[in-house]
Amino acid sequence: MDSDYGVPRELSEVQKKRALYQPGLPPCLQGTTVRVEYGDAAIAADPAGAHVISHAYPHTYGQPLAHFLRKTSIVPEAKVISEHPAVRVGIVFCGRQSPGGHNVVWGLYDAIKAHNQNSKLIGFLGGSDGLLAQRTLEITDEVLSSYKNQGGYDMLGRTKDQIRTTEQVNGAMASCQTLKLDALVIIGGVTSNTDAAQLAETFAAAKCPTKVVGVPVTLNGDLKNQFVETTVGFDTICKVNSQLISNVCTDALSAEKVILGEEVAASKLTIFDITKQICDAVQARAETDKNHGVVLIPEGLVESIPELYALLQLLLHPESDDSAQLSQIETEKLLAQLVETEMNRRLKEGTYKGKKFNAICHFFGYQARGALPSKFDCDYAYVLGHVCYHIIAAGLNGYMATVTNLKSPVNKWRCGAAPISSMMTVKRWSCGPAAAQIGKPAVHMASVDLKGKAYELLRQNSSSFLLEDIYRNPGPLQFEGPGADSKPISLCVEDQDYMGRIKKLQEYLEKVKTIVKPGCSQDILKAALTAMSSVTETLNIMSSSSVGQTTF
Amino acid sequence: MDSDYGVPRELSEVQKKRALYQPGLPPCLQGTTVRVEYGDAAIAADPAGAHVISHAYPHTYGQPLAHFLRKTSIVPEAKVISEHPAVRVGIVFCGRQSPGGHNVVWGLYDAIKAHNQNSKLIGFLGGSDGLLAQRTLEITDEVLSSYKNQGGYDMLGRTKDQIRTTEQVNGAMASCQTLKLDALVIIGGVTSNTDAAQLAETFAAAKCPTKVVGVPVTLNGDLKNQFVETTVGFDTICKVNSQLISNVCTDALSAEKVILGEEVAASKLTIFDITKQICDAVQARAETDKNHGVVLIPEGLVESIPELYALLQLLLHPESDDSAQLSQIETEKLLAQLVETEMNRRLKEGTYKGKKFNAICHFFGYQARGALPSKFDCDYAYVLGHVCYHIIAAGLNGYMATVTNLKSPVNKWRCGAAPISSMMTVKRWSCGPAAAQIGKPAVHMASVDLKGKAYELLRQNSSSFLLEDIYRNPGPLQFEGPGADSKPISLCVEDQDYMGRIKKLQEYLEKVKTIVKPGCSQDILKAALTAMSSVTETLNIMSSSSVGQTTF
Repeated sequence: MDSDYGVPRELSEVQKKRALYQPGLPPCLQGTTVRVEYGDAAIAADPAGAHVISHAYPHTYGQPLAHFLRKTSIVPEAKVISEHPAVRVGIVFCGRQSPGGHNVVWGLYDAIKAHNQNSKLIGFLGGSDGLLAQRTLEITDEVLSSYKNQGGYDMLGRTKDQIRTTEQVNGAMASCQTLKLDALVIIGGVTSNTDAAQLAETFAAAKCPTKVVGVPVTLNGDLKNQFVETTVGFDTICKVNSQLISNVCTDALSAEKVILGEEVAASKLTIFDITKQICDAVQARAETDKNHGVVLIPEGLVESIPELYALLQLLLHPESDDSAQLSQIETEKLLAQLVETEMNRRLKEGTYKGKKFNAICHFFGYQARGALPSKFDCDYAYVLGHVCYHIIAAGLNGYMATVTNLKSPVNKWRCGAAPISSMMTVKRWSCGPAAAQIGKPAVHMASVDLKGKAYELLRQNSSSFLLEDIYRNPGPLQFEGPGADSKPISLCVEDQDYMGRIKKLQEYLEKVKTIVKPGCSQDILKAALTAMSSVTETLNIMSSSSVGQTTF
Repeated sequence: MDSDYGVPRELSEVQKKRALYQPGLPPCLQGTTVRVEYGDAAIAADPAGAHVISHAYPHTYGQPLAHFLRKTSIVPEAKVISEHPAVRVGIVFCGRQSPGGHNVVWGLYDAIKAHNQNSKLIGFLGGSDGLLAQRTLEITDEVLSSYKNQGGYDMLGRTKDQIRTTEQVNGAMASCQTLKLDALVIIGGVTSNTDAAQLAETFAAAKCPTKVVGVPVTLNGDLKNQFVETTVGFDTICKVNSQLISNVCTDALSAEKVILGEEVAASKLTIFDITKQICDAVQARAETDKNHGVVLIPEGLVESIPELYALLQLLLHPESDDSAQLSQIETEKLLAQLVETEMNRRLKEGTYKGKKFNAICHFFGYQARGALPSKFDCDYAYVLGHVCYHIIAAGLNGYMATVTNLKSPVNKWRCGAAPISSMMTVKRWSCGPAAAQIGKPAVHMASVDLKGKAYELLRQNSSSFLLEDIYRNPGPLQFEGPGADSKPISLCVEDQDYMGRIKKLQEYLEKVKTIVKPGCSQDILKAALTAMSSVTETLNIMSSSSVGQTTF
């Protein structure tokens, strides 16, 4: 069964050309010698959740950040990893397929073989099911050949993406032990990386020698935090969907009709508030003779409308906690119906004087998922694959591979690793005036930061987006020429390289220590004391006021 | 109102690069001097309908084919068009927007201005509504600048695409007379070109001097006959949709589930036959452990299932004859439901042993329509625009611009014009054993030729398509590199250049006349007589057996 995984595929001309593309590596990963520098112990961003997390992850919480540096870097405390014994590494696709996933496997394979030809990379077939059933395929040049820079997860496949129950965790451990794996690399999103952290903790507690490494790969783009700037696949999804949405916009512009799709939206509004907002927009546009328009509605909109969510929970199959269930609710059709009813009422009443409202709904959930990955996603995934190897060579457990400063070109990227548990948060639900229920620590989906620069940009342009027809079409994803190197706006406008800045801070502190050594002058000591006292006071005030807030 | 038409658009990087692309011209249209050669009178392919058509189109049926040749061509009877007085030409988008439509306007503009700087091209705003209301925009370099090689119809817009009632036809004539148009160019599909032919006939009968020219532009690809090899937009639609469908295939392959979409299918089958075919395929694939697959269902499937069509005609809004109504019927969901029910029955019964059937439906009706046109569509539309000018310069009325031999590169393309009425057919419905009802002559949608080479190719591969996973992904539409110059398989495998071959035949006949002149030897005359007698007999037999059949 699953007989087709890893079989060489027949490629189209464009796919063949893509297969020849060789992603670059940042300077720190070039050559065979890499230095690793450890930072301070990483803590969870939410101080209130920290003790819950540290309690749940006694072996893997509080480990230091790791930075991978060039052999020639002048960082005295960085350790050169010079021994590269042969390793056996397992790799598994968990969660929904995301463009670029195959390149993580390729990058890891290249790094492993570059350091020791006797090392082996073993792919699990059919996702976590294959991990538990020990269905494997050894990755070779031949296996990789028709999957380099290609979309989908069909080299190894995936099924249900869960390694969570005691039975599953023990099954995974048994597989790792039977196959004598030095490391297990899990490719996935928030859920799969939470599972990876739990596996790492359980393995450590049980003294199972297999190290667990997570890789941020999900088209949802919701695995995002201080350490992770974006996920593999998100750039491709943005490009493919912008093209499709722009095509619909061009269509609307030519044909004059109102079209509903998916959008970035809304919190604490009722479905009637949202309907009213859309109706007001339709009316405002009609007043300037624009009898067309496109509304984008996010797939998860239903979840953010409390009264609707509660109702749907009652109606839907309760067995699965899969959020795919919610995508069955055709929010766009529901809204189209509500808007039509309201516009007809306004038309009758005479407050709306435009054309009869008519909506066409589109759902962009699947067309982009199997797309050929963009150059950015090819590069990012390939580099992450290399980083995985260095995490394994450094013997780290429960870490996620990170590449930061991604808005810059590949030669400016910084590579590192952060403990997955430090990306976790703890959810609280109040039940009654005094009591609160506490959830399990997990890497949660990042929501849009309403204080962030990307959202600010959207807000600044919202009225012109609403009333004008600013319909640029990025066109189909190009692999060469203009547009090939573009990146999502959210990635470009946001503050980046948190890990780089953490490292910089450490350098400043070291510098102060070097200057203000015992024996230095009274003046220098006094100046240092005054300055540091004021710095610490400021930071104290800032951090006490942000307790309980999670901000990104 | 319609205030946004023709306004310069802000373009993305890819769009800007596209705007700089200059389509080529075949040798016959290069330079400012073009020869026109007239062929024999064009007849309708359906001999039985010919008299009905000639009766309905007394002024415009039976006109000769026209071929546009190089100035240097050694064709003694070809006429060099040397006079190019200033002309006033109107142009209007009719029918649904199709990628490349803007380039017809650009091509026509360039040709008009190249021959006389005082000529004017006048665009009607908002389609046929704008034509009747005389809402115009003079086309200039500035207007064109942000629409060259771009998708949509937003330079001029469109609304309802009908010029059919006496009132509409008279309105159009009044506009042409008021605006003193020498010609009116109608860009559209089967319906709009039928309207164009009717306008031409009415104008000729009323001695209105405006000549009417049609251009084959529709993404449906269903305006196809001896003279028209493909329509502008079809290549782009094929490319964009193949990408999306391939993405869904890659997705299915990675995730193992059955997905339904649009397909090429079926005649004279009941909905239950189709359900059974799909179920058998699901079962056959499950037996080789393939628990996934993609089914393509054509938008018009409902129309080809008689019992369903009849039922839907009763249920649907009867006011409109718009076939868009039928696309409201979500055939794919209906079929998914029927297949699921049947697969569950088989599962229970024990004849099917695979996984539980679960379908996800996609509708690919709109995402491609506003796409950036492919290189082929940019070139084809631009050349057709030029051909329109030469039709106008030759003073022809009721013609469609044609470019043939399209599977070859642009420098091998042949340009010409064919009377639209010769592309018409007449539909018959039997009502009772002896009587038959006859429809109005019209350019009808071409259906897939079940004797054609493209279908044969599909048939030859059908069992491997059904049972194997031949999922190549053409990737996103590329404007450079491999794939940029690919063309639809249907265009490449079909016999082409009907117009070129008609011309070649004419040359052979002329040659016989030249050789067998009065005064030639008895032997030559005898040989010619014997040969021609056998040729005519063979053709007689062939054409009598094909009466009533339309074959292309």
